[in-house]
Amino acid sequence: MKRTELVRQIRQKKSFLCVGLDTDLEKIPEHFLDYSDPIFEFNKCVIDATAAYTVAYKPNLAFYEAYGLEGWESLQRTMDYLNEKYPQIFTIADAKRGDIGNTSSRYAEAFFGRMDFDAVTVAPYMGEDSVRPFLEYEGKWVILLALTSNKGSLDFQTQMISDEGGPTPLYERVIRRSMEWGTPSNLMYVVGATREEYLTHIREIAPEHFLLVPGVGAQGGSMEKVVQGAGNKELGLLVNSSRGIIYAGQGKDFQRDVENAARLMQAEMSSYL
Amino acid sequence: MKRTELVRQIRQKKSFLCVGLDTDLEKIPEHFLDYSDPIFEFNKCVIDATAAYTVAYKPNLAFYEAYGLEGWESLQRTMDYLNEKYPQIFTIADAKRGDIGNTSSRYAEAFFGRMDFDAVTVAPYMGEDSVRPFLEYEGKWVILLALTSNKGSLDFQTQMISDEGGPTPLYERVIRRSMEWGTPSNLMYVVGATREEYLTHIREIAPEHFLLVPGVGAQGGSMEKVVQGAGNKELGLLVNSSRGIIYAGQGKDFQRDVENAARLMQAEMSSYL
Repeated sequence: MKRTELVRQIRQKKSFLCVGLDTDLEKIPEHFLDYSDPIFEFNKCVIDATAAYTVAYKPNLAFYEAYGLEGWESLQRTMDYLNEKYPQIFTIADAKRGDIGNTSSRYAEAFFGRMDFDAVTVAPYMGEDSVRPFLEYEGKWVILLALTSNKGSLDFQTQMISDEGGPTPLYERVIRRSMEWGTPSNLMYVVGATREEYLTHIREIAPEHFLLVPGVGAQGGSMEKVVQGAGNKELGLLVNSSRGIIYAGQGKDFQRDVENAARLMQAEMSSYL
Repeated sequence: MKRTELVRQIRQKKSFLCVGLDTDLEKIPEHFLDYSDPIFEFNKCVIDATAAYTVAYKPNLAFYEAYGLEGWESLQRTMDYLNEKYPQIFTIADAKRGDIGNTSSRYAEAFFGRMDFDAVTVAPYMGEDSVRPFLEYEGKWVILLALTSNKGSLDFQTQMISDEGGPTPLYERVIRRSMEWGTPSNLMYVVGATREEYLTHIREIAPEHFLLVPGVGAQGGSMEKVVQGAGNKELGLLVNSSRGIIYAGQGKDFQRDVENAARLMQAEMSSYL
């Protein structure tokens, strides 16, 4: 998907909501377990309930891989459903892949060529040649880990490294170096909402790139602070919510609660658009 | 698999060879394409031809994911075959995963709980809580990326960071920090053979941990230098070869060439054991 289409979607829906499909058989309403593919049936209901308020869906690959072959079938069905029924909605494989060049090419083939995701999350540790193969697909996006929302982000990402222009945190070097590999039209960054103090700084380094922001809600980040700290003239944000939306309800009428949770977030977002 | 069993295998076989199963339909002998599962049938032949000389197999996940559902079926069959016929051989999911804690737990479930790999490669960028869930499985191993064999390893891994004891390259901080999370019995490091100048240094930092060393052969590293630079009293190395072994032959009798390639590497290795 092109950047202009994504920006248009955000304006039309007055939303920058990304719904994370972290689907867990132990957390979905019990009646889904009667289906032959409970994960897909649940995803379908969540998607239908939230599509009006949502500009992106982000299946978290680990949750599908944990169910083996059946999990991959559920993921493929979910992607087929999204690409057929909601082709205008942006899709993100939250896979955090990254390997030497010839291997990253195969991951790109898996997520872009085969499953037709619009974007994939990529880990930067292995450097340029591990990221470039993903950037070679026309109309597809890399979402590179910069500063994540977990405690462990302090172990390495915020460590100061000696750079030409003086000491720089690792995440900043990751952003600055990778801006030489991709453009605001094919490269975004993951920046956790729980790192508010860093959001403004990152927006200064990368004024035009989209930021994918997890951690609003369940992990404690504030939407207002995210927009104030990191919004740009096109907004330039995708704010993700997973558990807070998809597990908003239980029982047969859970879809109403899921829809309400998405509508509430969209309503808050609309005030910034 | 316990460390003592792995060490015993290495002594018995006089080998520290890991064969990388980077199976690519465009590179395997043509006659396999007549099978319903060419990837598994090829892997089976490679495994049978090399098992006498090999202490570990390392399927590269990207090559399986690139074929979608069928790829995952081939991988599952390969693992079932290995675990049934060669249970004493160490198995590594070369997956380079790593995510926030609850997500890493699901990846651990996928590779340890479901597929019964002995080890999984993990990327360190997200820090401690992204690695710990993999370390919680009894008898299973994390192989953490430290210093990889590709050009992009210079982008971040070798950058100097300001640490308490003075400037330290990032890969060294990764090793030192992670040695607080795991032990030589459940944690290894990936160190590329193409980084010979660093091998001795890494062995000083981590005298007891196993190192998984890619890059000997196809990528230009020398076995002798690897052993001299990074061998310890138990040897403490797994040296990986992928393309150099599995694509050593073509045609109907390719198995003979594959076996010879593995035997040659084992013969060189035996002189160090």
